[in-house]
Amino acid sequence: MSNTTDETLAFTPKFDEHGLIGAVIQDGTDNAVLMFAYMNAEALAATQRTGFIHFWSRSRQKLWMKGETSGETFKVEDIKVDCDQDCLLIRVTPQSMGNACHTGRRSCFYRSLNGKALTFT
Amino acid sequence: MSNTTDETLAFTPKFDEHGLIGAVIQDGTDNAVLMFAYMNAEALAATQRTGFIHFWSRSRQKLWMKGETSGETFKVEDIKVDCDQDCLLIRVTPQSMGNACHTGRRSCFYRSLNGKALTFT
Repeated sequence: MSNTTDETLAFTPKFDEHGLIGAVIQDGTDNAVLMFAYMNAEALAATQRTGFIHFWSRSRQKLWMKGETSGETFKVEDIKVDCDQDCLLIRVTPQSMGNACHTGRRSCFYRSLNGKALTFT
Repeated sequence: MSNTTDETLAFTPKFDEHGLIGAVIQDGTDNAVLMFAYMNAEALAATQRTGFIHFWSRSRQKLWMKGETSGETFKVEDIKVDCDQDCLLIRVTPQSMGNACHTGRRSCFYRSLNGKALTFT
């Protein structure tokens, strides 16, 4: 049923052609999905080293800590990797209001798709 | 605080250079994150039309319904899009055992990263 990537305990993340891997950020207090963003190897290492979520900004080409300006930092509880090691799921505990989205909302997923249009939820 | 992509109710998904958009699949019964995979416009349309999760297989270059061989299908409850419209969050209700992973596990995220190695969770 499995191949080595599926069942190995060696961490061999599949970074894409831009050196990035996607990370789903989930609130450990109630399992809400807060956001999805990309890490490079440096951002993942900083996240592990500091215990706080870091990302790689493609537009600014810069490592940044989530919340470094807003104060909305997220403490890492657990980092999981999926079966083919091309996506991370990181459970976090919010350290401030818990608003992960740059719009000030808790979650970046605040619109639902109905047919061809969106509705706020 | 916002730009048009953030606040519009027009659905303008940002497919990547391969015509794909990532989709986080979340179990609506307990908010567990089951998997992350990619949809193209055709897979998203089929998901909306049928009410069941469809993906685009990059390796087989083929549209497929999740569970079409395993029987583990997932009924769509809600499709959300994130602030910059480059990721979907789809809440589902499992129709069989609820094992989303091709390894037979419920979730694809069954290994935690501790230092440089993984542990089964």
